[in-house]
Parts: sequence; C-alpha cells; structure tokens
Amino acid sequence: MVQDLTSDSQVLAARKYADREGKLSVHADWRVAVPENIRDVSQYPLANLTGEERNIVSCDATTLVDLIRKRVHTSHEVLTAFVKAAVVAQDATNCLTEIFTAEGFKRATELDKYLEETGNVVGPLHGLPVSIKDHIKIEGLDTSTGYIGWAYKTVADKDALVVDILKRAGAVLYVKTQNPQTLLSLETNNNVFGRTVNPFNRQLTSGGSSGGESALIACHGSPLGVGTDIGGSIRIPAAHCGLYGLKGSVARLPHAGLLGTHDGMEAIIGCVGPLATSARDLELFCRVMLDAKPWLVEPPLVEMPWKRDIARGSDLPEKLSIGILFDDGVVAPHPPIAQELRRYKDALIAAGHDVIEWYPLDHQLGWDLIVKLYLLDGGKEYHETILGAGETEVPQTQWLLNHAKGRAPYTPAQSFRLNAERELFRSKALAHWNATQQRTATGRPVDVILCPVASTLAPPHDTTIWWGYSSQWNLLDLPGVVFPVGKFKADTHITYPAFAPPRNDVEKFIQGQWNPQTYDNAPISLQLVGRRHNEERLLAMLNVVERAVPRKVAVNGVKKI
Amino acid sequence: MVQDLTSDSQVLAARKYADREGKLSVHADWRVAVPENIRDVSQYPLANLTGEERNIVSCDATTLVDLIRKRVHTSHEVLTAFVKAAVVAQDATNCLTEIFTAEGFKRATELDKYLEETGNVVGPLHGLPVSIKDHIKIEGLDTSTGYIGWAYKTVADKDALVVDILKRAGAVLYVKTQNPQTLLSLETNNNVFGRTVNPFNRQLTSGGSSGGESALIACHGSPLGVGTDIGGSIRIPAAHCGLYGLKGSVARLPHAGLLGTHDGMEAIIGCVGPLATSARDLELFCRVMLDAKPWLVEPPLVEMPWKRDIARGSDLPEKLSIGILFDDGVVAPHPPIAQELRRYKDALIAAGHDVIEWYPLDHQLGWDLIVKLYLLDGGKEYHETILGAGETEVPQTQWLLNHAKGRAPYTPAQSFRLNAERELFRSKALAHWNATQQRTATGRPVDVILCPVASTLAPPHDTTIWWGYSSQWNLLDLPGVVFPVGKFKADTHITYPAFAPPRNDVEKFIQGQWNPQTYDNAPISLQLVGRRHNEERLLAMLNVVERAVPRKVAVNGVKKI
Repeated sequence: MVQDLTSDSQVLAARKYADREGKLSVHADWRVAVPENIRDVSQYPLANLTGEERNIVSCDATTLVDLIRKRVHTSHEVLTAFVKAAVVAQDATNCLTEIFTAEGFKRATELDKYLEETGNVVGPLHGLPVSIKDHIKIEGLDTSTGYIGWAYKTVADKDALVVDILKRAGAVLYVKTQNPQTLLSLETNNNVFGRTVNPFNRQLTSGGSSGGESALIACHGSPLGVGTDIGGSIRIPAAHCGLYGLKGSVARLPHAGLLGTHDGMEAIIGCVGPLATSARDLELFCRVMLDAKPWLVEPPLVEMPWKRDIARGSDLPEKLSIGILFDDGVVAPHPPIAQELRRYKDALIAAGHDVIEWYPLDHQLGWDLIVKLYLLDGGKEYHETILGAGETEVPQTQWLLNHAKGRAPYTPAQSFRLNAERELFRSKALAHWNATQQRTATGRPVDVILCPVASTLAPPHDTTIWWGYSSQWNLLDLPGVVFPVGKFKADTHITYPAFAPPRNDVEKFIQGQWNPQTYDNAPISLQLVGRRHNEERLLAMLNVVERAVPRKVAVNGVKKI
Repeated sequence: MVQDLTSDSQVLAARKYADREGKLSVHADWRVAVPENIRDVSQYPLANLTGEERNIVSCDATTLVDLIRKRVHTSHEVLTAFVKAAVVAQDATNCLTEIFTAEGFKRATELDKYLEETGNVVGPLHGLPVSIKDHIKIEGLDTSTGYIGWAYKTVADKDALVVDILKRAGAVLYVKTQNPQTLLSLETNNNVFGRTVNPFNRQLTSGGSSGGESALIACHGSPLGVGTDIGGSIRIPAAHCGLYGLKGSVARLPHAGLLGTHDGMEAIIGCVGPLATSARDLELFCRVMLDAKPWLVEPPLVEMPWKRDIARGSDLPEKLSIGILFDDGVVAPHPPIAQELRRYKDALIAAGHDVIEWYPLDHQLGWDLIVKLYLLDGGKEYHETILGAGETEVPQTQWLLNHAKGRAPYTPAQSFRLNAERELFRSKALAHWNATQQRTATGRPVDVILCPVASTLAPPHDTTIWWGYSSQWNLLDLPGVVFPVGKFKADTHITYPAFAPPRNDVEKFIQGQWNPQTYDNAPISLQLVGRRHNEERLLAMLNVVERAVPRKVAVNGVKKI
C-alpha cells in the first residue's frame, strides 16, 4: 500500500517494516494466515486463544483490573491473551507500529510478583495491558508518527504525561498503534507502515487518526487504548470500529509529551482520550488520569479533580432534556444512522425523557473556520515534512491540504481575526444552547446533544470528505463521547427512502456513496455532546441513555468457549 | 501634556476634553482649585466633603454595601460623597474619561426607592458606586481607549460582561477612567486626555494601564474599580497608589466585551480584576463575578465556582511555607522595597511561618519572551492605529514598540515556536515551584511567593523600563495580588546601603534613578503570587500575611471629622 517514494524513503520504510516483522517473529506460533479475500477478519485474532483467553479478551478493562487484583488471573496471563490477539490483528488490519511485548511481559511478571509478595496492587490499573497511539511518546521508542522523515530520528527521551501516569497506575504497555500521515485525517494511512483497515470489513477504513487503536481494540488485541482527537480522531475510529471513545474538553486530560507537526499551534488544540469496549472504562481512564493531579506537572491543565459521584449520576435529574441533531444542514447522515437516531428518539421518550430537536449551528461555517485554523501556515510545515523527506502525500493528506492550496501563511493580524471569529462562533453556540430552555419540557436548557458521529458508517478508503459531525465539537471545545448502537447488515429486501436533493457537492458525493453492500458489517455508533468541562456529567448521561435504549446487538462480541 | 498632533487629531482631542469639561461643569460647586505646584494632592478631594461624607469615603466597599442594605446611608448619599471626591480627583490627577454622574444618580435613586419599597436589595452590590477603566465597554458610552482615532467611533452597543454582572448586582456606575495609549504600558498617558498623575506625588506616575482607576480610588473618588492586567496593569497602579489589586488566572473572571487593539491575540491573555481599598473587597468582587456563573455566557471561562470558604482560609494550614523573592536577578528593588521584604520576612518567621528564599526563574528570559508575544505583528497594528489617526506615539509607547523595531511580523511557524517556548518556560516554573518542597520545613512546596511589585516605587513619568516583577506572572499565568505595606518618607538622616555593581543597563538606569527625594510620599506595596486557578487560596493567604505583619501606616487614610 506504500506509495511512490524516493529510494532513501523506501529504505527507511522497509527498515521500519522489517523491524516490526522482527518483533512479530518472536510470536510466530501465534500468527494466523488471514486470506486476502476475507472482508470480515474480526474473529481471526481469536483463533489461537484458549477458552480462558477468550474469556479474558471479552472482559473490559474495569473487569480485568478487578480480576487481576483478586488474583483470578495474573497480569501475564492477561497480557498473553491480548498479545495473541494483537499479532493476528496486526496481520489482519495493519494496526501496529512499535512492538515491545518482551518489555510488556517483563513488567507483567514484576507486577505479578509484587502482588504475590505484598498483597497490594501498585495502582488502579495494576497489570492491565494498554495500547498507545504512535505519536504519544514512550521513552526509548521511536515516534515516527506516520512520517518517513521522522523514522529513527524521534526516539523519545521521556514518557508523555499520559504514559507516565498509566505506568505509575500499573498499566502494562506492549504496543504502539498506527496513525496517519499529518494526524489530520479521519482515516489511517501513511508511507511508513501503510494503511490500517477495518476488521469488520477490510474494504472500509478503521477511521483515524487513532485508527490503529480502533482496529486493534476491535480485534481484542487491547482492552484499552489511548488516542488523540483534534477533529474527530478518537471518536471517528471508535465509531467505525464499534467502540467507546471520549474526547474531553481541552486542558482537562494530560496532553504533554506528544510528537506532532505544528507544536505550539493553539488556535485549535487536540485532546488525549481513551478508546475502550465499555462506557465505564472511559470513566476509569479519566479517573486514573485526574486522580494523579496532572495539573501539578502540565501547566495548561485545569485544576479540576475528577468528580466520581457526578460521573455516577449523583447530580442528574431523573428526566433528562435531550436535543437530537438529525441533520447538520450540510450532509444528512446515511439511512442506518438516521434510523438509529429515530429509534433512540422513540426509546428515550418512552423512557420518560424530554426530547427536542437540536437545530444545527452552521456546520459549514464551522468547518470552513476550523480548517483555516488547522492550516494557519497554509500547510507549509506539512508539505515540508512530507516532501522534504522524499515521500508523497497520501490521498487524505492531499484532500485536507488542498483546503489551503496556494494560500500564503496568515499574518498575525489574520490569525487574530480567525481566533476572534472562533470565539464569536463559540459565544453564539453557547447562547444557542442556553436558549433551548425555551423549548424543553423541563425548563432547563438541554442537558446533552445526541447526534451522528459522521454522515456515513466507516467509509471505503480515501473517501472521507465531511468532518462536520465531529470537528464541530472541537471547534466549540465541547466534550463528545461515542458509543456503539448496532452493526449494519446489508439486506437486499429492505428499501431505503430516497434522498432529498443534495444541497451541495459534498452531500451529492456522500449520497452517491450510499449502497448497503458497501457498508455491510460496519458498526453503527452515535455521539453524545455535553457542556464544556463536564466530562463526568456526560458519562453519567451516557449511562442513562444506554439504560433507556435496548442495544440491538453486541458489536464485537466474543464467543465464549 | 498632549503631544504634537495633526489638526484633525487636535480637534478630536479638544472635543473629548470639552465634553468631559461639560460633564464636570454640572458639579462646578464641588470643584476645588488645586495649585499647580502642590505635589501631594491626595487630601484635596476631601475638601468639600461633610464629616459624614468623609466617613462614607473612608469605608471599603464591603462596609458600604452593608451600610446601604441596612439603610444607614442611601445609595444617593454614598454616590454624592464619591462624586464630590471624584471631580476634584479629576482636577488633581486627570484620572477620568467618560463622566455620566447624572445616570449614576438616577440609578442610585431607583435603587434607594426599590429598597425603601420592598425591603430588599437587588443584589450583593446594591447601591455601590463602581468605576470602570475606559476600554471596558459600557453600553452607550464612547470607548476611545486612549486612541484619538477611536474617539466617537467606538460607542459601545453592549455592556462588557463584567459591567453586566456589576449592574445586575446593583452597582452604580458613574465614571470611566483613564488608560494609556496601547494599554501596553505601566504608566497612564495618551493624546486624548493626557497624562494621569499620582495623587501622593504628582511628579510620579499613578501606574498603568489602570492608572485612572488607581488615582481615582486613592483620591476617594471611587470605592472599587475595575481594571485589566496583561503585564502588571492592575497590580502596578494599585501598588503605586497604595491600593489592593488582584490579577487572577486567565479565564477565571469575566473578560468578554473589552475594546482594544489585538483582539483575538491569545499568546498572552489579559485579565479583568478589581482595585480596592481592602483585601476583602477583592474577595467581594470575585464572589459577585463567579456567583453569576459567567461561564454560561463567555465560552473561554473555566466552570470553577468561587469557593468562599477557601477564600476565608478554611483549607489553610496553620503554618504557611512562604518563598520570598528578594531580587529577580535582573534589577534589584530599590531600598524601601528591599527593606519591607526583610521586615516581612522577620515578622512572618516571628509569627511561626516557614520562610525560604524563592530563587528567581530567569526574569530576563521571561521578559524577552513575553515582549515578543505582545508584539507578534512587530507592532504593526499599534503603529497603524496611532499614526494612521495622525497622532504621535507617547514615550512609553515608543519604548515598548522599540522592542520590535524593524522586525517583520512573525510567521505562523515562528508564532508556534514562541508558544512552545512559553509552555516550556511554564513547565520549568511549575517544576521549580514543586521542587521547593525539598527546602521547606513543612515538606510542602511553598504555598505562596512574596515579592516586589516592581523594582521601584511609583517612578517619575516616562521612566518605567522594567516589568519583570509583574509580567513574569502573566507569562506564567499565576494569580498575583498586591497590597500596601507603608508609605515612603524621604528622610535625609537615613543613609541607604550602596548598590552592588549594576548587572546590566536597565539596572544601571534604575540604580541611577534612586534618590529618596524623588519618591517622597510614594506608597510602598508588595505582591503575593499563588498557584494557578487558586485565587481563593491566594486571598486567604493575604489575610494570614496581613495579620502576621503589623501595618506601619494607613496609606490613604481619611481624617474622620
């Protein structure tokens, strides 16, 4: 899948690939041949697992730390199960970058010994395997971040803060995962390791930019992963792979120690966050992070301890007021998503909640603005980092950077004006939210917005061209959580309603893309968006919503043996 | 004092001046001739006050709202006393811009009537006169902000959020106060209204950029004023005029609705805050602001309610660990300041507190960095705003803008690098603070830093050339509060120790400036600096420090009659 490269670049990419193969070869016995023509590879990673190991990888992180603490399983046993799945996940989806399972097993053994000898855990994540997105620094490991030019030049001399906290909490790290070239992509493709694919249908993307995480976790190769999100990069891959994913507000969760282009760019700031197989694991991650008081180490973070009682719903009213966004006014969601929104509406009303329509606040304007803020320098640094190293721009990079094609870098005065426009947009959005109190039955503004994560399910590779359902909340700095609601099955007996005439070229393209066969087996997910800095409340409301609406199907269930 | 201007500019400035005179003429009976040659004019504003009125203007805001609520005084009586002093303060120090006392008296009358009829106050500031710095918008008033080019073109169509909250809380607005050209100045001088001078010694500056507020409040022309601070602009004028002033952390107090150049510049963000005659009035101001939940209106604000119990010291240990900064390593403070720091050290130790030296973290580097961040565009917008309107740059504007002389505006990449440098500096400072735990007797990092506000007392006009004791805390985004500790009296019998050899040209200049006669009658103030977002704790610690150290003299006392 690697594109045209200069010979130097080819050499570097080949070396990264060979290094990774070398690490995988240690686990040769666990590898499974996955036929090229198989679309749904999601069950292959389980092939070599024992019954007990299948039970292990079907547990969420919360259960696993409990089982390890109670010595039902050792950390070594747990890691073994996940590594077995991870090596096949890699072969099936190309989701990994740095592999350091030897260090992982060494640490697991130490932790098992410590628990055995002292009866104590070292922290709340004692023995839990956790996977880490490539551009998040782990001391001693290369951080190539999808750039050939960075390969072997970016060995981290220090852990990112999130990694440091995870390690202190007892987590066992063992793999890093793929991210796309530039990180500014909702798919995952680069010239270092190639493309990551969706385990439920390999013709579709696993999402991006945390698409290595989503593919790996969906394949049961990790129970909990750490991603980042500046336009949808946690939520989109989580949604496309049937997982839970949280993008908090800026400055809530530790963010120091990432490698990336545009270091110091603050017009739009990304967030570190978890991808997981349960809602409660998102809460576990946040709790561990904030109980560590990261604001004593990372200056921009807000000193706002994690309020566990609120995350458990202590301050929620019995009846929520929920605004549903059915259509962002630019690109209506594909039928399976629209259908789920209607189903949720009915079920939430039936459960006694107050549901109103959330009217969109100009998502096109929001997109036009955020893409300018992403590319204040006209894309210069991205172009230089890629082309300067003799590699090519992958299609999604080209698509994004074309938004600034031929444009000079902004002057300080222009940048100031864009910041002011962003603040004006945020003010309008806040007033818009407050004004919903005139329409709710509770007399309160809506507590939460329920909306699509994207206009389509996981799309075919290189066709993601509308970010408006995810990037809008980055622009507004509102926390968003995605959760799986089902899996799409192409059924030729079903007739879908015709689309309204397309309102623009992007919608026309996305309407044209609709074909049930294309999306067969893709997970269906939705998103809840809360008030800024109210991550606890958002997760509490997710629990309420999940309780109110029966889940149709387990998205990535494991057959217990 | 107005400099060379084109004729159009002269016309505009003359018109602003005439408008102000017109408003003052309504109170012709209250005006007092202040002889040109008198330096200390601080008592003149009291000349026309009755005994009862002198009692009123000697009260702090907390007492006044209590007296009004209890109907000991009406709001109209209180406003009368302050307006009487304000008109003379204006004649004596040139501290006012927009004067709207008629509207103030009308509002006071309404509030008195409401209280009379209902027995209730409209809010926690019912009837309290409050003064507002010029660039903070008040609906219907011009916001010339020290620029001739803005005169009559900037009539506000909306109140700033801080003004809106004040009004809802029952405050009575009646005057706006001077700020300097560019606002980026620690003195107060512009070509619209001229220079504001220090009421205790008119040869000295009242400080800036909130120097209209400090002169007015020191003259008893207002009990409480609202200023802004991006490099010392609340703390310096408060200190130079013997007042209390608080600059909180960015995004804690309402900031929306200010007029200024560089709207949308976010590399360094200013803060709105109070200037007052007591520490508890700072707390009152913050409480009123945050009880109004401003984060529901202004998106950047942190949702962090005011913790009144902490502001009252509920979580303070009995014994504080205090770091004292005696010398920032660039410019040692003048003798009266150094002497007060030693006195505080001894008294704090005697009161049982743990005192260590705070080692400065490269204030020169901090200054070099912050001045780049102030002037990302090389000063272009400032130059254009001033010169484009046919006015000249006042000396302090020239001094500041010279830091970017001949430099092109920064590219986005250069701006990103500067942001990253700032973050690195903040990280180092945080680690530096945490590391003090190795030196304290309590085993905690220091709770607070005690330090100078500036290297000199209020200096002669146009000689402020070192911001390092105030701008450092803006760069680090740490809250700082200043408080009066005495008043300097030139005494020819005292011999001051010789200075160490100057370490640089700035220190050489400031050493050369030292002459007791120059600073005769100037207030002496110190500063406490706390942890980010811990404004409550900072104010609680100020109480502890003030209790521990006997105040030598009331700085701007009123003789009760």
